[in-house]
Amino acid sequence: MKRLDIFGLLRKDMNYIEDELFRSIKGEHELLNETSMHLLKAGGKRLRPVFVLMGGKFGNYDLEKLKHVAVPLELIHMASLVHDDVIDDADTRRGQLTVKSKWDNRIAMYTGDYIYARALMIAAELGNPLIHQVLSKAMVEMSIGEMEQIRDFFNTEQSVRRYLLRIRRKTALLIAISCQLGAVAAESDPKTANLLYRYGYNVGMAFQIQDDLLDLCGTEKQIGKPPGSDMRQGNITLPVIYALQDEELQGPLLREISYIRERNGECDVTGAIKMIKASQGIARAEELADRYIKKALDALERLPENRTKKNLRDIAHFVTKRSY
Amino acid sequence: MKRLDIFGLLRKDMNYIEDELFRSIKGEHELLNETSMHLLKAGGKRLRPVFVLMGGKFGNYDLEKLKHVAVPLELIHMASLVHDDVIDDADTRRGQLTVKSKWDNRIAMYTGDYIYARALMIAAELGNPLIHQVLSKAMVEMSIGEMEQIRDFFNTEQSVRRYLLRIRRKTALLIAISCQLGAVAAESDPKTANLLYRYGYNVGMAFQIQDDLLDLCGTEKQIGKPPGSDMRQGNITLPVIYALQDEELQGPLLREISYIRERNGECDVTGAIKMIKASQGIARAEELADRYIKKALDALERLPENRTKKNLRDIAHFVTKRSY
Repeated sequence: MKRLDIFGLLRKDMNYIEDELFRSIKGEHELLNETSMHLLKAGGKRLRPVFVLMGGKFGNYDLEKLKHVAVPLELIHMASLVHDDVIDDADTRRGQLTVKSKWDNRIAMYTGDYIYARALMIAAELGNPLIHQVLSKAMVEMSIGEMEQIRDFFNTEQSVRRYLLRIRRKTALLIAISCQLGAVAAESDPKTANLLYRYGYNVGMAFQIQDDLLDLCGTEKQIGKPPGSDMRQGNITLPVIYALQDEELQGPLLREISYIRERNGECDVTGAIKMIKASQGIARAEELADRYIKKALDALERLPENRTKKNLRDIAHFVTKRSY
Repeated sequence: MKRLDIFGLLRKDMNYIEDELFRSIKGEHELLNETSMHLLKAGGKRLRPVFVLMGGKFGNYDLEKLKHVAVPLELIHMASLVHDDVIDDADTRRGQLTVKSKWDNRIAMYTGDYIYARALMIAAELGNPLIHQVLSKAMVEMSIGEMEQIRDFFNTEQSVRRYLLRIRRKTALLIAISCQLGAVAAESDPKTANLLYRYGYNVGMAFQIQDDLLDLCGTEKQIGKPPGSDMRQGNITLPVIYALQDEELQGPLLREISYIRERNGECDVTGAIKMIKASQGIARAEELADRYIKKALDALERLPENRTKKNLRDIAHFVTKRSY
């Protein structure tokens, strides 16, 4: 897995943000340095910082200011992943051992707490109250989303609406505020910041739907973990919800999901995946992702013209076509 | 266990803060409401809000502003306790079931995350960057402290210095910034805020030493949990460190601690407690607590005269005499 590197313009600045990310978590505490470094080194697409910088292009672009938003947003994302791994009982992420598996659950919990706090500390250096209001509100929503996720494991009766609300909190919100706060930190006007929020929100929704599709249709090499891991942990995603609406498949698929649940996911899930692929689940989920992309592009249209707009358009198109 | 109610002056305002605490955690999410309410209802001394209000008396006392600091500080304290209970594997706190025991560890972790985020959201409403800087820095220190605590369990070779650094992060810092931020929110001058910080820091150190003493010398009724719980979970406190410096007791006490460790704390610890009481450990810890109180009183002397000073003096005297 590698960083999105389709933006030549930002490459230099993103390298600087990458260095800042490493600097940001370095502290006096050895074990916390180790666990946090381990997380950072595992990589990731750094999507949130990229969106922050692009949002910044709609105002007075100043990397020294923008880093106080770009770094915290990636850190908040990372911290949520560590806490997620505790819950999901995941041993690997992005092909690397998770903190909870390399160390233990307690250390993973406090590593998450530490990274959250570091993120807020770096954002606080900017002294802009609006940024804090937006960040802390998003963190409230994210923690509600995480809690919902626990309750929704193996809940085969959940609606599409419930799924969408969950991915809104889990993914879309943080991407939305990345775009928005980039603009805010660059002192752009509120209308521009709001349009960027809407762009980011819709791209984020499409991104998560695509992520959930890849977990069913991708290969281990493409996604950095064995496919079907959502099925195994009882994470009922959009294609599954749609597949369960198929009258003929519903019975067998429900039985398959019960079977997986009884075995705590320690079983073959290829049968369940084949059923979902035989349904309209994949096509309908793809269609919904495309609709979110269309909404993102609509928001984009209303933004002032600049070179970044083209890049944001490329990302929107890229999201539903990516295979990693 | 009841609230410190020696301050008639603040009773009405503290009742208002109590209501605000309940309001602050009410959200749309049922399970998070339940877990957070459970925590709030378990009570506690509300020491941090009390200190915030008293700090506020050294500036333009405005309860509507002060609540944006008092509520977050109590919430941050509460969130750290929930995460603590996950680590400590504690089934009760203040005589009540803990979230991790009434629900489960995952729910306790996300309840903590939720309450942290809520705390920051409420503080953000005030729009004062200094408050965010101080809060987020304290949260970084606290999470380092929590991590240290894990590593120090059953570490019988730790120094007094290491113990003091741990309780600084675990307790004293949050009490120090409660006093300080009360003054900051009330727009008092930096010198006053700093003196209040020093008062709070020293009271906080004495408070935690006293807490650790009570765990050895108190009764279950006094402390709301069975005495000796620190011994059982391997939390090596000041009286133990001092007792281990007694050449004659060192051998037997080390063997007793190994025995407790082997049994994961599921054994009688009265023998170990008796040994500590037979040493100079209790007296020396009390003496150090008194020295911190003296420092707190010194900082207090340098503050401008007002009615709150007398109350703060009473609290300082009260801390090392309390038996709950």
